[in-house]
Amino acid sequence: MQNKQIDKIRENINEIDSAILALLQNRLVYAKEIGRLKKAADRKVEDRKREEEVLQRMVSENNGIFPEETIRAIYTEIIAACKKSQ
Amino acid sequence: MQNKQIDKIRENINEIDSAILALLQNRLVYAKEIGRLKKAADRKVEDRKREEEVLQRMVSENNGIFPEETIRAIYTEIIAACKKSQ
Repeated sequence: MQNKQIDKIRENINEIDSAILALLQNRLVYAKEIGRLKKAADRKVEDRKREEEVLQRMVSENNGIFPEETIRAIYTEIIAACKKSQ
Repeated sequence: MQNKQIDKIRENINEIDSAILALLQNRLVYAKEIGRLKKAADRKVEDRKREEEVLQRMVSENNGIFPEETIRAIYTEIIAACKKSQ
């Protein structure tokens, strides 16, 4: 009985993971556009202040549900992923 | 001009980041439920096979848009975050 329930919940998790991936791919499109605009304006692509701002926003919105270091680890990976492609 | 455009795109990215966070928090609820069911069935909480299956699915759905190691790094963090709370 538990096994069937577990399989069902895993299907929900799979859907969440796919939805996150779709969002990550959208994020990449926007990040590339920002990279293009920065280059056109002769601005450096790297922006540590903005990165820290993103991390702070997420830590604050998380409301303590995940530990802070977990939120920082996940979004640091996401930011790095988008930056690499800029 | 570029700066205004960049700010606008950043707002879109902020919305994406918030949507990802909401999905992560849903994922955590499901992961906790699985942890509870596994304990009730006397199954180990850790399941490397399932973790590798999640990573493989994401690599395959990603369709080469992000590098494979990037997808693995992001989802490894996500899986670890949910596992810690099980």
